[in-house]
Formats: sequence, C-alpha cells, structure tokens
Amino acid sequence: MAYDGTLFHGWQIQVKERSVQEEIQKALKKITGEDIIIHSSGRTDAGVHAENQVFHFDTDKNINEKQWARALNHFLPDDIYIKDSEAVSDDFHSRYSVKKKEYHYRLSTNTYSPFDRHTIYQYPYGKLDLEIMREAAKIFIGEHDFASYCVYDEYGNTIRTLYDFTIEEKDGFFTFKLIGSGFRRYMVRHIVGGVIQVGAHRRSIAYLKELLDSKGEKKCLFKAEPEGLYLMHVHYEEE
Amino acid sequence: MAYDGTLFHGWQIQVKERSVQEEIQKALKKITGEDIIIHSSGRTDAGVHAENQVFHFDTDKNINEKQWARALNHFLPDDIYIKDSEAVSDDFHSRYSVKKKEYHYRLSTNTYSPFDRHTIYQYPYGKLDLEIMREAAKIFIGEHDFASYCVYDEYGNTIRTLYDFTIEEKDGFFTFKLIGSGFRRYMVRHIVGGVIQVGAHRRSIAYLKELLDSKGEKKCLFKAEPEGLYLMHVHYEEE
Repeated sequence: MAYDGTLFHGWQIQVKERSVQEEIQKALKKITGEDIIIHSSGRTDAGVHAENQVFHFDTDKNINEKQWARALNHFLPDDIYIKDSEAVSDDFHSRYSVKKKEYHYRLSTNTYSPFDRHTIYQYPYGKLDLEIMREAAKIFIGEHDFASYCVYDEYGNTIRTLYDFTIEEKDGFFTFKLIGSGFRRYMVRHIVGGVIQVGAHRRSIAYLKELLDSKGEKKCLFKAEPEGLYLMHVHYEEE
Repeated sequence: MAYDGTLFHGWQIQVKERSVQEEIQKALKKITGEDIIIHSSGRTDAGVHAENQVFHFDTDKNINEKQWARALNHFLPDDIYIKDSEAVSDDFHSRYSVKKKEYHYRLSTNTYSPFDRHTIYQYPYGKLDLEIMREAAKIFIGEHDFASYCVYDEYGNTIRTLYDFTIEEKDGFFTFKLIGSGFRRYMVRHIVGGVIQVGAHRRSIAYLKELLDSKGEKKCLFKAEPEGLYLMHVHYEEE
C-alpha cells in the first residue's frame, strides 16, 4: 500500500486523530462486517509517507486474494492506495517476518515550492556538501547500538544493523536511502538530521561518531522534518 | 508567484471561502496598514494551480522593490510563494498589459498515486493515444471563436488566438502545453477534455472541429479536472 502521510496523525489508531490503521479497519468492516485488527510492518509517524507499506489481517470472509485490493480501494479515502493483495500462510506476520526495511528521505535545497511542501523537506539554509555527507553516512553502516539516534526508551533493544546508506543528488534534490534490519522510532530522522548538519558544515563527522559510540549517553539533537520521509520497501526474504 | 490551488476556492476573493487574493491582501494589510486591492493577470478556479502568476497593486508604502517578495512571504501561508517583485510604471496593468499566457495540463495514465492526487489529473480509463491527440490539438491553433469551449456568456467576446498547443509524454505522464492570447473561463479544461476523448478513441477529431466551428451552438461537454491545470507563464512583451 501507499499513503500520503500529510493528513494522518500516523499509522497507529488514535482516539481522536485520523490514522491510516483506522481508515483501513473501517473499510474492512464495510467489506466483511467483521471487527478486524490489522498489523503493519511497523508504525509511521505523523506526516511520514509510505510508498510500499505492508499489513496483514485474519478474516473469515472468502474473497479472492487479488480482489481485496480493489474492494479496499473502493472504500478507502484518496490518500491511501492498496497496490496489491495476496493470501499468506498462517506463520507470516507483517512485523515479525520482516528481514529488511528501506527508507528514503527526500530533501531540496532549491527555492521553496508550495507544491512540494508536504512531500519533500525544503531545506531553507543554503547548499549542502554532498561528498562530506556521503562520508558521514559510512559511520552508520554495520551493526550499532543506535540509542543516541532513537527516542529514549529504557527497556528497548536499540541495536540494529544498517546494511546500506547512500545519498543521491540531482539539481538540488537529495535522496537519502537507508536499508537496515529495522529502524526504531525517529531513528532515520535523527540519522539524516545529523548528516544534514555535517553537510551544512555545522557539525563534524567525528561528532556524529562520538554520539553513536556513546550508545545513548549523548543524544543527537537534530531530527529531520517528517514530510521528507518515505517507507519505500519492506523485505520478507533474505536476498 | 506560485500557488498550490488545492485548498483555495480560486483566485478571486469570496465571502466565506479561502482565496489567493484574500490571503495576499491580508498580508499586504499587515505590511502596509493599507487596504490594498490587488489585480492579477486573471482568475484561476478552485483547485487550479499557478507556477508563475502575476499581480500588481498601488501603495504609498516605500519599500525596496525586491523586498516586497520577502515581506509578503513572511506573512503568507505555505501554499503561496512570491518568487519575485519589482516596481512597475503607472501604465502597467497585470491583466490589461498581458500579451500571451501559457497554461500546462498534467495528466497521468499510470497506477493511482496518492501523492499526485492534487497536482496531476490521474486518468483512470486506460491508455491514451498520443499521436491522435497531437493531431487533434492542431485544429485549435490560430484565431477562433472558442464559444463552444467556454462557459456560456451572452455578452463576452469568445474570440481568442491560440499560438501553440503541444503535447509531451514520458512514462505515462502527459503534459499539454497551450500558449494563447488569453483564455476564457474553463477554456483550457474544455479543450483538453475534448482532446482526451479523442485520445481515448471515444470521439473523433472531426467532432471536436464541428463543435469549434459551431461557435457556441454545440458545447463541448468534456471538462478536464482542475487539479491538472497550471498557469505557467504570463508574457507582457511581444517576443
């Protein structure tokens, strides 16, 4: 599924705020009459987008696997689109079966455009140094305790493996591409936020490394804005 | 100026609805203290966008010509952006001094994307025939009475000159580009709407020509959706 996160308070169902989960569950109720709880590969925060999010659910309703997408799209609002649907085995779980996830972060250093305001972070402070950001990205690759780049959580395991982190630029439009075993809340936005500071020559690569190595003692204080972030792919197979 | 027309009821000030004109006049009031009426090159309708709209106003406030853009952007909402500002002579009028206008219409025949829903018309009925649409476009070029492709208006002059009408396509994204002496209300959307019908092989080029030649007797009933339409350029100089 794809969704434009602009008008959602995030993935997870909320009491008063609009959420992606609630919209889908409401659509499923209309199709099946059942009170279905859906499970995604993970949450996304308010304003964050998905190009290819995955969710699963259990149902007694007998509909052809490919027809679920069409039926859901009929009832869903226009900022959510189900791209495909298929039947899965009982041991599949959208969250626990994940092998890798890929996030992209889109940023522009060009003149402000009102058309991009919800879908690209429009960096307003001038140029960014692509080469030094690419160097900075390297320090995050591999298995690390990312506690300094996550939301504080006393109990959670903050060790993750980042398999790849590349940055592309074309005509002032930057795309940061991160592939990892998983990402904790705000982790991509803190990593990208730190790398942007290096690209602006406001912080050094050594400083980002020092934060990382402190394993939560020293927190990254830079968090990139939500509108640039996209969940691009969820991989369930080892490649 | 550029504006994303999605959340506006159009350019022209309304009693209860949000308009681009009102937002700018409110910003000018904050800057100058004056009740300024602004004049654009023309109106745009609800949901229609502008990449380069032009407006003028008179003021007693003495601000450097280039500083007006920055001052306005400070007070304007994020779906409007003033790109540039300059002082003009008293005989310049944003509307009456116009020599040519260029509109673009953006359309996609690809799978629905929630990210494009306000900025591209996502044509849901399959492929379109580019070559026959290019042939259809030719019948509109030149000076014509476009009454069949405008809103009905007993008194208005519906004769306009279309200087150029080209259609480009890349990977299922189409851009219709029209340059003319001026365009009446809904005129671009009716012309593009008719050409789309030809591209879908639902109507013939001869049918569009018959409508045009009837000078208002037979109306074009196809009107392309507003979200694909952009005012791209307003020309004040003969080229």
